[in-house]
Amino acid sequence: MSRKARKLARGVAIAGAGMSKFGAFPDKNGRDLFVEAFTEMAKSVDKGIDTKDIEALYVGNFSSDLFEGQGHIAPIMADWVGLVPKPAIRVEGACASGGISIREGFIGIVSGLYDIVLVSGVEKMSYLPTERVTDTLASAADTIYEGCCGFTFPGLYAAMATAYMAKHGATVEDFMRVGIKNHKNGALNPKAQFNKSIRDLMNARMEKAKQKGEPLPAWKDEFDFLKDPQANPTVAWPMKLFDCSPITDGAACILLVAEDLAKNFTDKPIYIIGSGQGSDHALHEREDMTTIQSAKVAAKEAYEMAGVTSQDIQIAEVHDCFTIAELVAVEDLGFFKPGEGTKATKDGLTAREGAKPINTSGGLKSKGHPVGASGVGQVVEIWHQMRGTAGPRQVPGKDIRLALSHNVGATGGTCVVHIYERR
Amino acid sequence: MSRKARKLARGVAIAGAGMSKFGAFPDKNGRDLFVEAFTEMAKSVDKGIDTKDIEALYVGNFSSDLFEGQGHIAPIMADWVGLVPKPAIRVEGACASGGISIREGFIGIVSGLYDIVLVSGVEKMSYLPTERVTDTLASAADTIYEGCCGFTFPGLYAAMATAYMAKHGATVEDFMRVGIKNHKNGALNPKAQFNKSIRDLMNARMEKAKQKGEPLPAWKDEFDFLKDPQANPTVAWPMKLFDCSPITDGAACILLVAEDLAKNFTDKPIYIIGSGQGSDHALHEREDMTTIQSAKVAAKEAYEMAGVTSQDIQIAEVHDCFTIAELVAVEDLGFFKPGEGTKATKDGLTAREGAKPINTSGGLKSKGHPVGASGVGQVVEIWHQMRGTAGPRQVPGKDIRLALSHNVGATGGTCVVHIYERR
Repeated sequence: MSRKARKLARGVAIAGAGMSKFGAFPDKNGRDLFVEAFTEMAKSVDKGIDTKDIEALYVGNFSSDLFEGQGHIAPIMADWVGLVPKPAIRVEGACASGGISIREGFIGIVSGLYDIVLVSGVEKMSYLPTERVTDTLASAADTIYEGCCGFTFPGLYAAMATAYMAKHGATVEDFMRVGIKNHKNGALNPKAQFNKSIRDLMNARMEKAKQKGEPLPAWKDEFDFLKDPQANPTVAWPMKLFDCSPITDGAACILLVAEDLAKNFTDKPIYIIGSGQGSDHALHEREDMTTIQSAKVAAKEAYEMAGVTSQDIQIAEVHDCFTIAELVAVEDLGFFKPGEGTKATKDGLTAREGAKPINTSGGLKSKGHPVGASGVGQVVEIWHQMRGTAGPRQVPGKDIRLALSHNVGATGGTCVVHIYERR
Repeated sequence: MSRKARKLARGVAIAGAGMSKFGAFPDKNGRDLFVEAFTEMAKSVDKGIDTKDIEALYVGNFSSDLFEGQGHIAPIMADWVGLVPKPAIRVEGACASGGISIREGFIGIVSGLYDIVLVSGVEKMSYLPTERVTDTLASAADTIYEGCCGFTFPGLYAAMATAYMAKHGATVEDFMRVGIKNHKNGALNPKAQFNKSIRDLMNARMEKAKQKGEPLPAWKDEFDFLKDPQANPTVAWPMKLFDCSPITDGAACILLVAEDLAKNFTDKPIYIIGSGQGSDHALHEREDMTTIQSAKVAAKEAYEMAGVTSQDIQIAEVHDCFTIAELVAVEDLGFFKPGEGTKATKDGLTAREGAKPINTSGGLKSKGHPVGASGVGQVVEIWHQMRGTAGPRQVPGKDIRLALSHNVGATGGTCVVHIYERR
């Protein structure tokens, strides 16, 4: 009775998508952000939706418990958008909570129990001071075997980065290139927390120094800027500030409907044709820290279900909580061979204009990383790119028919992969 | 496109069930409890199971984040029982997390994505001092509109109890009878945290007083004992100590399999033939505090799916986090008319020997309430009662073919109902 690819009893389509602005909003709590995303989702449905027809709500959330002191948030979110008394389910898989939300909603429709499901994610992180955010996030690692030794996530990903350097000869510049690319994309995304390229940020600092009459830093390009420890301090070597995603408040909502109903909502649905999920041991138990088993398992399941290969995927949103994570992701997904993510990035293959654009939204790095919402936010980008509504960041010269999202929890204890098709 | 009863694409059966001892175990963490429940589950499968065949794991857990400082527990639990790299999903709906776990596993099998799923619940509550446990649980209510006013759960349920008294003329004795009945059942359950009847507890205190040469309390029966404020202090009037479920550590596991595979595992499977879930507004928003909308919605869905009525159900495990909760439950489920739960209890209808035995396990009140595990623990009892393996607490004189479980989160923000059949 081994696990195998199965023919789906029923197809699932995306009929609407919306997200809040991502950022740090002292005057907005999780509920406010959720309503903002829900409202944009409802407006995005081409032929309209009576939201009373939504039959269930899945909410991805890492730890509203620790961030906001509020557990049991699913019925609260349901209440705030008028969905009571429908089933409201919170799912949690650390930073992959959003991806799990999509998968559970997908399964719900495939099962036939539901026709119309709202899948979502929300996280309000910025109430706490930074060090407490870092501690809260660290509870997603193995607190007995990793947390107790002082490991927080920058340290855990730094361990993966040094292992990757040792195995593949990667350099800090290889990591920097991921951040430079993603910020360049994020500069085109009005919803992004940091919608500035690193060059823009560098120039702004130059300008500031000039105005203050201070000595001008000797930055010729982004690499100079990123190597300046004052501009880009080390968080956990080799991960520097600009290798780390920020602390973000945000929410995202996706409307899933049974395939046979999709045309009631839009003439341009996006279909979810593959879904995969896997788990992995905590980082300290792994033999190889340069790859994530759960991602490979999830990708394999999703590719098999979809009947496509990694080479068929035209664009992808992958989980770049740290720059090293994107390199590992594009290799685990089979886009590039192990160790070749660095060269692919250097050669521009993963740029918006490249052969395999990765994180056109700006990724978690630049768009922001409200952890429980990130996996759903990825799909908002894919929805826009596949429908040609991504505005100035629309991928040029591609008719996008196959896309992928990859959402990791912690150092890969959880990974969820989905594949999308426009027909 | 209104919600309607649907014919299931595929049936689901329970092939195994196990639980840890419920109690306060200073030397056991959530992982230990989970392994204990998993091991008993694996042994319970009549024809055996190679646990490597399990395809996914759902874990119901309210807030390991706050109780143990450990988020993202699903892959950790998967790892500790050898299920990595299978998908591992935590679901949370406060004290209904276990019920959600069962429902999501059920949906997973109905969908055809999985054939064999482990559904489970775990909560380790006793590390924290009591007042912090109470605060942690309070985060399952609406912290902005209820928590801020000082409401914790005894107070919220006390508000429901006083509303019920005002509407139906119930008395404190009516609440006490629920506790007396459930402790009587729990006395027969070796897994129960308090496996003593209230009369046993009373007699033990008498004996102690006698041995110490203290003046003997003038308790003629359980009611005298429960009305003595020294023996049974008020927590939030009219809810006294023996109206409240305890703080508990525990875990429970159920093995779900596709109906067509059930006979590979056991000749006596129990089928899940109905599943329902609903949400409700927070308590402060409700027009009527003597009933829980989510429970009615969940029950209606489950009854319709199963094609049975409340009168067909032979036994039920219902969510008695407080004694008032059982009275509301048996009415919301349609077993008795509004306000008549008290009389039914007084007349012994809900006793183990009665027409409609409720909480033969001892209920949350006596068996214990490890909040995320409770909904799964209920089904362990149903599994034993339906298979005739409940030992001294086996319901007498009944061939149990239809049973029900009812699992509430918070004051009913979430409710999940399942219906079980033995053929």
